[in-house]
Amino acid sequence: MSKYNPVELLLKKRDGQALSQEEINWFINGYLKGEIAEYQMSAFLMASYFQGLEKPEIAALTKSYIESGKSIHFSGHLPVADKHSTGGVGDKISLMLAPIAASLGLLVPMISGRGLGHTGGTLDKLESIPGFQTGFSMQDFTALVNKHGYALVGQSAELVPADKRIYALRDVTATVESPGLITASIMSKKIAEGAKHLVIDLKVGSGAFMPNLRRAKELAELLMHTGQSFGQKVSVVFSNMNSPLGNAVGNALEMIEAIEYLKGRYLPDTYELTTALTAEMLISAGLAVDFMAAKEMIDNAVSSGKALDKFREIIQAQGGNPRVLDDYGLFDAVKVVEPIIADQAGYVHSIDSRAIGYALVRIKAGRMVVSDAIDYSAGALLHPKIGDKLAVGDKIGEVHAASTEAAKEVADLIRRAYKINPLPKAKEDLIFEIARTEG
Amino acid sequence: MSKYNPVELLLKKRDGQALSQEEINWFINGYLKGEIAEYQMSAFLMASYFQGLEKPEIAALTKSYIESGKSIHFSGHLPVADKHSTGGVGDKISLMLAPIAASLGLLVPMISGRGLGHTGGTLDKLESIPGFQTGFSMQDFTALVNKHGYALVGQSAELVPADKRIYALRDVTATVESPGLITASIMSKKIAEGAKHLVIDLKVGSGAFMPNLRRAKELAELLMHTGQSFGQKVSVVFSNMNSPLGNAVGNALEMIEAIEYLKGRYLPDTYELTTALTAEMLISAGLAVDFMAAKEMIDNAVSSGKALDKFREIIQAQGGNPRVLDDYGLFDAVKVVEPIIADQAGYVHSIDSRAIGYALVRIKAGRMVVSDAIDYSAGALLHPKIGDKLAVGDKIGEVHAASTEAAKEVADLIRRAYKINPLPKAKEDLIFEIARTEG
Repeated sequence: MSKYNPVELLLKKRDGQALSQEEINWFINGYLKGEIAEYQMSAFLMASYFQGLEKPEIAALTKSYIESGKSIHFSGHLPVADKHSTGGVGDKISLMLAPIAASLGLLVPMISGRGLGHTGGTLDKLESIPGFQTGFSMQDFTALVNKHGYALVGQSAELVPADKRIYALRDVTATVESPGLITASIMSKKIAEGAKHLVIDLKVGSGAFMPNLRRAKELAELLMHTGQSFGQKVSVVFSNMNSPLGNAVGNALEMIEAIEYLKGRYLPDTYELTTALTAEMLISAGLAVDFMAAKEMIDNAVSSGKALDKFREIIQAQGGNPRVLDDYGLFDAVKVVEPIIADQAGYVHSIDSRAIGYALVRIKAGRMVVSDAIDYSAGALLHPKIGDKLAVGDKIGEVHAASTEAAKEVADLIRRAYKINPLPKAKEDLIFEIARTEG
Repeated sequence: MSKYNPVELLLKKRDGQALSQEEINWFINGYLKGEIAEYQMSAFLMASYFQGLEKPEIAALTKSYIESGKSIHFSGHLPVADKHSTGGVGDKISLMLAPIAASLGLLVPMISGRGLGHTGGTLDKLESIPGFQTGFSMQDFTALVNKHGYALVGQSAELVPADKRIYALRDVTATVESPGLITASIMSKKIAEGAKHLVIDLKVGSGAFMPNLRRAKELAELLMHTGQSFGQKVSVVFSNMNSPLGNAVGNALEMIEAIEYLKGRYLPDTYELTTALTAEMLISAGLAVDFMAAKEMIDNAVSSGKALDKFREIIQAQGGNPRVLDDYGLFDAVKVVEPIIADQAGYVHSIDSRAIGYALVRIKAGRMVVSDAIDYSAGALLHPKIGDKLAVGDKIGEVHAASTEAAKEVADLIRRAYKINPLPKAKEDLIFEIARTEG
């Protein structure tokens, strides 16, 4: 006879009582062993969506996820730090941040995801480099990080398998948008990979999951509390996702933008965010005393070419062709380039980043379901930001696609994502606020 | 490409929007065809539990349930009426009501359920009669009703199969206690079986699902509205389930109490409730002008022996041994009878009927899961009602069980279910209120 029964625990959660660590372990382990059915787990997830999870429950769920697989413990003296982004449009920050941070003496065991829906994924961007591999065992991943200071891989089946299975179930049962479940999912991976210093880029706005700062702060509070209860220092950078980040949206295009960045040719918004996030990691790890000191280190890492060298090193180590750094012709070639032309004069009042993300899915720059194929060459370059002035006939940007028809259709959808109005509009801040755990 | 996708409909329900008839049909039919997974249905059920279902959604779900199977249409001139009870302890009313109503010219296509948890089930009580069969096809059931005026059977696989499958899923996913889901489940069966006049015994109190009258009235409103939207006249009798009904709890014991009733030896509470419920059916069907007229008809049906004859007729027709009516020795014999003796003096202030139901499950008078076996001879006879005075040493009743040890344990549990206090306590009303649909 089992200690609990699943319906009893479901009733408890449904009726708003918190579950204990022991109860959560029993439920998660029972699910992994097949003793608790998929339909009972999905009922649990939906009840958790409605009742929420209390902080001790989130910590318990996180622990249970971590213990479902193996964890990495880095034994050396270097501080272990990582960044997580809650997902946006044109977000290629990891591609610059990881080599910069590694070149400055941090160990960065970066486990990334794939694009889904309107948001892109770091793994897809990396795989636009011919030959680049992202699937490694935890042992090989650890060896890469120890040797090169970082690695850029996907989640292996050995790391928090409970989260992997439960995330897939949440995706098909409308239970993704739960702060407690999101927290356990993010934090279990970042704790199991061994990061002691974590910076979270929590995106707010039209292209983000979080529509406003108030809701984002509630999530941040859960993320920080959970990290802290596992001995992790956590910073949360609340960043603006009302405009796509940088100019490029699409896998090879974003990769080229990231390489250009590491060559010192960066755009104002990607520079501001990359610097802010990397600085949090350096300060938390004690490698820089304050933001100005961190900024100087970061600027030097790029201007000295050390960050680009680090990137070359990992491309080589992960099976990619490092000559892409010097010859962008090695990326998949685009067939059609279609300009996006403004048909209204005025100021950009808003940009529907989510609509841009979904428009680009049509030309396979992204995907709707995990099994969809990606066209690495597809995407868009987009120049205006909120507050910029446009005249009729100005070029908003260009669409890169496999056919003229598709390119024209997407160019039209993107043009309509820009709300242009004759009244002037102030530019928006990129970083709203930064929150940090104590100590 | 399908018209909807399941996640889209789950998000809609989760976020509190009502689903249309078309959407509900698509979801239910997709589930029955295996295109929508069990885990998606359970997520839908849990979201419905939290967001509730609006009246048009409940009607849509009821329609979808009905259309998942066959319906019965009685073509004769006799009015078709039925009763549903929301479940209690010692509730054997159907055993008297059905033959009385049939002997008075109503067609009663009664589909009953089995006991589960603390509540008993009419089918188990019937099957305590040697040979009695409750499994019939819809065709054979219809023929029985047309021939004998009633039949007492279980739900066949042809009748509302969607409800049958979804009810089983609700049972294991903590989604039973949802007024909207309960309404669709009850009403789909009562509409598909062809009842045009329905009386619902909605139980309120310690032994019932509904803890108070306010919640019961909300459910009644949904039941009446749904029945009415399918052209059914519905009465709801709000009855007190703070004390077990009658004296007997347990299958053969309750059957004997019912037979005694039909022989004119009835207990005050079973008489009051049976008469009230049967009267509602007679009045709704136009066979009696008011309660007094109905009561006279009902009293005559018993005193003339016609109701007992009707019962004998259906026992014979459904394969049972009608000699049980005259020889209770034909029921399974009990091994041990253990008295339950009061150890406190005072007035009965409350009776935990639910605890009594669960105590009796231990000696197999009931069951916890559908596959548990029943001991028909097991049960209890319980005399005091709320407000009755007891002295130390008075006999509260007796437990009938297969072993002395089990009987003593259950006797002790039942004794503790009676809260006795020196202060006097008023007796409670059995019927709180009656509500009826218009017209």
